[in-house]
Amino acid sequence: MVSQLNGRSVISIDDLSVSDIEAIFKTADDICTNPHDYFGKAAGKIAATLFYEPSTRTRLSFEAAMQRLGGGVISTWDVNASSVAKGESLADTIRVVGSYSDIVVLRHPWEGAAKLAAEYSPVPVINAGDGSHEHPTQTLCDLYTLREHHLTLRGLRVALCGDLLNGRTIHSLAFALARFGANVIFVPGDGKEIPDYVRRRLERDYHAHIRREQLGVLSALFGDAPSGEEPATVDAIYVTPSEPHQLAMSSIEGTTVEFRVGSGEALSIYVTRRQRERGGDSPEAARYPTLTARALKTSQFKDISILHPLPRVDELSPEVDKDPRSLYFRQAALGVPIRMALLWHILGLGDGGQSNRREAYCRNVQGLGYSQPGIDCSNKTCITNKEKEFVHPQFEVVRNGDYKLRCLYCDQETATACFGNTESRIYYPSELLDRVLPPISPGHLRFFQSPDAAEAAGYRRVADSWDRYHPEPGKGRKSWLDLVSGRSR
Amino acid sequence: MVSQLNGRSVISIDDLSVSDIEAIFKTADDICTNPHDYFGKAAGKIAATLFYEPSTRTRLSFEAAMQRLGGGVISTWDVNASSVAKGESLADTIRVVGSYSDIVVLRHPWEGAAKLAAEYSPVPVINAGDGSHEHPTQTLCDLYTLREHHLTLRGLRVALCGDLLNGRTIHSLAFALARFGANVIFVPGDGKEIPDYVRRRLERDYHAHIRREQLGVLSALFGDAPSGEEPATVDAIYVTPSEPHQLAMSSIEGTTVEFRVGSGEALSIYVTRRQRERGGDSPEAARYPTLTARALKTSQFKDISILHPLPRVDELSPEVDKDPRSLYFRQAALGVPIRMALLWHILGLGDGGQSNRREAYCRNVQGLGYSQPGIDCSNKTCITNKEKEFVHPQFEVVRNGDYKLRCLYCDQETATACFGNTESRIYYPSELLDRVLPPISPGHLRFFQSPDAAEAAGYRRVADSWDRYHPEPGKGRKSWLDLVSGRSR
Amino acid sequence: MVSQLNGRSVISIDDLSVSDIEAIFKTADDICTNPHDYFGKAAGKIAATLFYEPSTRTRLSFEAAMQRLGGGVISTWDVNASSVAKGESLADTIRVVGSYSDIVVLRHPWEGAAKLAAEYSPVPVINAGDGSHEHPTQTLCDLYTLREHHLTLRGLRVALCGDLLNGRTIHSLAFALARFGANVIFVPGDGKEIPDYVRRRLERDYHAHIRREQLGVLSALFGDAPSGEEPATVDAIYVTPSEPHQLAMSSIEGTTVEFRVGSGEALSIYVTRRQRERGGDSPEAARYPTLTARALKTSQFKDISILHPLPRVDELSPEVDKDPRSLYFRQAALGVPIRMALLWHILGLGDGGQSNRREAYCRNVQGLGYSQPGIDCSNKTCITNKEKEFVHPQFEVVRNGDYKLRCLYCDQETATACFGNTESRIYYPSELLDRVLPPISPGHLRFFQSPDAAEAAGYRRVADSWDRYHPEPGKGRKSWLDLVSGRSR
Repeated sequence: MVSQLNGRSVISIDDLSVSDIEAIFKTADDICTNPHDYFGKAAGKIAATLFYEPSTRTRLSFEAAMQRLGGGVISTWDVNASSVAKGESLADTIRVVGSYSDIVVLRHPWEGAAKLAAEYSPVPVINAGDGSHEHPTQTLCDLYTLREHHLTLRGLRVALCGDLLNGRTIHSLAFALARFGANVIFVPGDGKEIPDYVRRRLERDYHAHIRREQLGVLSALFGDAPSGEEPATVDAIYVTPSEPHQLAMSSIEGTTVEFRVGSGEALSIYVTRRQRERGGDSPEAARYPTLTARALKTSQFKDISILHPLPRVDELSPEVDKDPRSLYFRQAALGVPIRMALLWHILGLGDGGQSNRREAYCRNVQGLGYSQPGIDCSNKTCITNKEKEFVHPQFEVVRNGDYKLRCLYCDQETATACFGNTESRIYYPSELLDRVLPPISPGHLRFFQSPDAAEAAGYRRVADSWDRYHPEPGKGRKSWLDLVSGRSR
Repeated sequence: MVSQLNGRSVISIDDLSVSDIEAIFKTADDICTNPHDYFGKAAGKIAATLFYEPSTRTRLSFEAAMQRLGGGVISTWDVNASSVAKGESLADTIRVVGSYSDIVVLRHPWEGAAKLAAEYSPVPVINAGDGSHEHPTQTLCDLYTLREHHLTLRGLRVALCGDLLNGRTIHSLAFALARFGANVIFVPGDGKEIPDYVRRRLERDYHAHIRREQLGVLSALFGDAPSGEEPATVDAIYVTPSEPHQLAMSSIEGTTVEFRVGSGEALSIYVTRRQRERGGDSPEAARYPTLTARALKTSQFKDISILHPLPRVDELSPEVDKDPRSLYFRQAALGVPIRMALLWHILGLGDGGQSNRREAYCRNVQGLGYSQPGIDCSNKTCITNKEKEFVHPQFEVVRNGDYKLRCLYCDQETATACFGNTESRIYYPSELLDRVLPPISPGHLRFFQSPDAAEAAGYRRVADSWDRYHPEPGKGRKSWLDLVSGRSR
Repeated sequence: MVSQLNGRSVISIDDLSVSDIEAIFKTADDICTNPHDYFGKAAGKIAATLFYEPSTRTRLSFEAAMQRLGGGVISTWDVNASSVAKGESLADTIRVVGSYSDIVVLRHPWEGAAKLAAEYSPVPVINAGDGSHEHPTQTLCDLYTLREHHLTLRGLRVALCGDLLNGRTIHSLAFALARFGANVIFVPGDGKEIPDYVRRRLERDYHAHIRREQLGVLSALFGDAPSGEEPATVDAIYVTPSEPHQLAMSSIEGTTVEFRVGSGEALSIYVTRRQRERGGDSPEAARYPTLTARALKTSQFKDISILHPLPRVDELSPEVDKDPRSLYFRQAALGVPIRMALLWHILGLGDGGQSNRREAYCRNVQGLGYSQPGIDCSNKTCITNKEKEFVHPQFEVVRNGDYKLRCLYCDQETATACFGNTESRIYYPSELLDRVLPPISPGHLRFFQSPDAAEAAGYRRVADSWDRYHPEPGKGRKSWLDLVSGRSR
C-alpha cells in the first residue's frame, strides 16, 4: 500500500490528517523496536538541509535520521554568506537545491517561506521553521512523546506554560492537541497570553469550550507555596472539546487512540522558554511560569509529565532533570525516530520504490479564498512581501471580530477597512459585511485597506441610511461568510 | 578498459581532451538512465570539499554526486575561520586534507590556487573555482546541457551575453565551444567586452575566423523593439571555425558529434549575471543584455535555448522561467550526473578497482616555457605571489602584440620591456624579438621588466643601428617563437 | 572478545592504559593493510562532531574515519551562532546531541568541558580538545607515527621543541612517552619552559630521572653553526626513566614493545608551533627552536625523524618537507586509521554487536579527593566556573611545594593558604600540613583560600608555639598525603 504521505510536502501540522500522524507514529514505534530493518533503505537518496537560520538540534536530528536510513545529506546552514550575498531568491535556490536532492528540509527567517519553497521545489519540502510561523516536526515530537508516556492523547490535560503569545509552534500544538481530543490549559507569563484569534479558532474549528478557572495546583509554577496557602488568583483557560462526537466525526478519521475524555487525571506540563531573539523590543514578562524541583513536591503532581521543546533559559531548573517525570530529553531523542518515520513515508521507502508524487503542497483553503493586486500582507517579514517577483499574496477571508484577510503564506491577518461590490461599484465599511444580503458573490468582492483606497478606485460609499434597512443578523442566522463559502456550520 | 581520466586532476577545461569530455558525457547519459547501477560504487571512498569562498550550488552538487555514488564527504566551507586564521598555507592544508580523502574539490579566492593544490596533493584535485580564473565543471555542465538539448554542438550558434570581460569561465566556455565546432557570438554589456587576448587565442589556437556583424535579432536583448524597427547598431563578434578540416584533425579526436557546420539555425542564448562581488571598483555597465519574456516573442527565437550559470541578478526575468526554451534550471540539475560521471572516471570506479594514478596535473606548456627569479606574475592575487615558499612563477612565452609571459598558474599575462642573451650580455627591446636571428636559444634567454633592470643585471643595450640590419620578418616568415619552440604553424 | 574500550569515553590520554593503546595501534595496523575489511561495518551508526572552536584537521579526520567505516556524521562547527546564542549549556546540548548519535566528538574552548560532557552524555565522548587542556587523539597519532617509523618507543629519545609552557597536549605527550619507556628531551623557546608541576609529575608518577645537559647537536635548532663551533650553552632537560624495572611493573601491562632503553641512537625531533591565539598577552619568545634544511645537515641527524602536529607557522621550514626524515604529513595522514581504530573499539564494531557500555568516564582519583563548597577552581575558563548549575568542583589533593588542589576537570592547581580540622575548629598554615600528626582524617579536612576565610568560618589559628613541638618530618618519613591516602611510596 502506498503511503498517503508519499511525495507530499509538510509545511504545517495542519497538512497532516490524524491518520497521517498515526501512520507516522506507527512507523516510529517500529523503528524504535527494529532499527536494523530501516538501515540502508534510503541508499542513493539525498536530503538537503537548507538552514537560513541557525538550529543545531532540528538540523542534526534530520541529518541523523536520513543517515540512519542510509541516505546522504547535503547541507548548508550559513546560507547568508553565499547565495543570499549574491542576491539569489529563495525561489531560485529551492529549484536548484531541489534538483540535487530527493527532499529538502528548510529553515528560513521569513514567514511563509516554506510554502513558497514547496510551490517551486521539484521535490517535497519539510518546513523546519519559517520565521515565527510553523515548525510541524516539533509538534510531531511533542505529540509522540505525550502518546508514548501517557498511552493516549484523548482526555489528557496539557498545560501550555510560558510565552503563548509569540511563536506559532505553541499555537499549532494547541490545535493539534484539540484534534486528538486532549484538553489544553493555558498558563501564560504576564503579557504573553494566547492571542485572541487562536482562541477563536479553537472554538470555531475545533468546537472547543473555553472556560476560565483558578490555577489551582499549577500556581506552584509561579513560585507560590506549593500547598497549605490560598491558591493564586491567576486565571487559566481550559479548552475542552465541547462536542466530542462531532469532533470524532469531523477530524479524527481512523484513529485508534482510546477515548477517555474527562478522565482528568493525567496531566502534562509543557514549559516554553522566554523568547529573547524574536520580538526583542517587548519587555520581558514580570511573572513567568517556572518549574523548580520544589514546585514538583506537591502530591497532586505525582503522575504528571514534564515537556520542554528546548533549549531552555531559566524557566526550567536543572534540578528537575533527574526527576523521572521529566521527559524533555526523551522528547528531544524521539526527534530522530519521528523524523526517520516522516522521511520514510514521504520518500516512499516502504512502498517498494513506487512513486506517488502528487501535488507539491496540498493544503486547501477551508473558507473563501481571496487574491487582489493592491492588498499586501500586513506582516513585513512575510515571504509575499520579500519575493514579490515569485509569489502573489493570497488570503482566506476570516471573521475575527470584523472580517479580515488571513495570509495563506504566513497565517497572519490583515485588516480591511471596507469592501466593495465590483458590479455596483459601492463600498461598505467592513463591519457591515454580515448585513449585505443577498451576499456579494465572491467573484464580485473587493477589499480595501482604507476608504480613500476605495474612493480612489472609483467606488462610492453606501448611503448612510442603508444600515437601517439591513439589521444585524440574529443568533442562529448564517453569517455572510458561511453563505458564500457554502459551509453549513 | 581503464579510464583515461583515472587519477587525474582537473584544473582547467583545457586539461580535458575532447574524448575525455565525450567519455564523461557518455557516463552521465548512462547515470541519468540507470542511476541504480551507480549507487554504492564509491563505498569507503571520501571526497573532501574544501571551500575557501562561499558557493552553495557547486559544493552541494559535488556532495550530492559523491553520496549518490555511495561515497562519503568531508567538508569545510568556512576555512577562513580555522586553518587560515592559524596562518596555514594552502600547500600544507592540501597535503593534509588530501591524505584524509580520495579526491579534493577546491574553491579558493586566488588565481592558480588549484594548480598549486594539484602539485602538492597526494590525490586528484578538481578545481571548483580559483578566483576569477577557471571553473571547469561549470563548463562541463554548460556543454552537456547544450548537447542534450540540441543533440550536437557542431555548428550550433551560442550567444555569450553580458559580462565577457571578467571571469575566465566565460572565456573557457568560448574555447571549449570552439573545440567542439560551435560558433560563438559575443554580446557584451557596455565596457564588458571580451579581452583581446581571448580573441587572439581563438584565432591562433582554434583557427577561428572572427567577423563583426550587426546584432540583428539579438538586439532585442537590449530592450529594443523586437521587430519592425531599425535593428540596433551594436556590434557582435562571430567566431566561426575557419578551417573545419584542420580543426577536426588537431583537436577533436574520437568525437562522435555530428558535423553540421553552417546549418546556422540552432541558437542558444547564454546569459551571465552582472558581476558585483569581483572588481567592485569598476562602474556597472550602462547597457547590459537582459532577457525578458517580451524579447522572446520574436518568431526567430522560436527554436532557441536559454542558459544561465546562476545565480542571476536582474539580467534574466523570472517571467521567462516557465518558458519551455529556458534550460537554466535543467542546466543546474545536470550538475549532479555530470559530477557523478567525473568522479566516476577520476576515482576509477568503473575500472574494477584498478588504479591508474599518474601525474597529479598534466597540462603541457604548448609553447616555450620560461622561469626566471626576479620576474613575478603581474596578477597580485595569483597564488605565485601569495605562497612564495611553495611555488615559483612559471610562464609560457606568448605573442600578444609584443611578447609577453603568460603565467602557468593564473593564465594572466605579464609584460616584458626587454630581453637579453645570457651569452652576449646584450639586451633588446621586446618588440625586436622577432628580428633576432639566429634565435637566442631558450636556455640563453632572459626577460626584464624594465631597461633599468637589464642594466642593473650587467646587460648593455643593443646598438641603435642594429635594427637597420635586421628588417622585420615578412609575411610567411616564421616568428622567433615558432623557431625556438619548433612548432611549424 | 569484547574490547576493553567498548562504550568508554576518552577524555585524556591517561584514560587509556598501555594495553588499550596497543590494541588501538594493532587495529590501526590492520586497517592500513586491509582497509576493505572495515568498510561498511558502522552502517546505521552516527558520530556527532560538535566543534565549538574551529579545527579543520581534527574534525575532518574524524569525519573521514567514521565514513570510511560506513557510518554517518552529523556535524556542527560553528555552534556559537546557534545554541550558544540561545543560551544553552553544554550539559543540555550534549544530552540532546548524544541522544541523536552513537558517539560524540567534542571540541570546546573551556578546560574540563569534555569531562562534563562525558558525565552527561548518554553515549561515549571523545575529547578533540578542551581549551588548553587535553587532546588525546593527537597524542595517539604522535605515538603511532613514532612507533611505525622507529618500530619501538622504548629507549627512543624524543626532543620536544618549542612552546612547552602552554598547551597541555605537549605535557600529555611527555607523560605518554614516559609510560612507553621513551626518553624525553625538553628544548623550549625562551620563556616557554615546561612547567614545574609537569616535571614533578614525571618524577613522582613516572619515576623519571631528570638531568640538565648541554644541548649538543640540538643547538643547531637555534640557528647556531651545525658543527665545528662551540656548542650552545642552552640547557635541556633529559627525562630518563630511572627505574626501568619498576616502571615496567607499574604502568606497562601487556605491552609488546621491545625493550631497548639506553640504545640512545634513535632520535625524534618534535617541533611545535609558536602559539599565537592563546595567551596572546605573553610576549613572543625571542629565541625559539626552528628547523631548517641547513640544521639537518649534521651527520648526527642522519637517523632522526621529524614530527610536527601542524599547522606550522615559521618554526619548520618548507624546505624540509621533501626530506625523507620528515614524518609530519605522514603523522597527519595516520590520523584517519588511528581514529578509525579508536571508533572501532569504542563502538564495539569488532565485538559482534555486543554492547559493553559501562561508565561514561572512568578516570580514578589516584590520591585524596576533595570537594568543598566555597573552594572554586582558580582557572577562570574551567568548566566548573562556567556551568555551575551542572558541575561542582572536585579536586585531588597534591603536593606541589605546599599542598594544592588539582582540579579534576581542568587539571590546573589551586593554592590553599591554610587548612582546618572540622572537629577541633583549628586551622593551620598550608606548609604545616606534613607536621600534623596524627593526620586529620580526610573527612575532617577543610581547605581555605585565606586565613580570613578560615576565621570567617569560625576557625581559630593554631598556637604560634605549636610548630616547636611538631618538627618537620625527616627523610624517609611518610608525608601526610601518603598517610591519609594509604599509598606506600
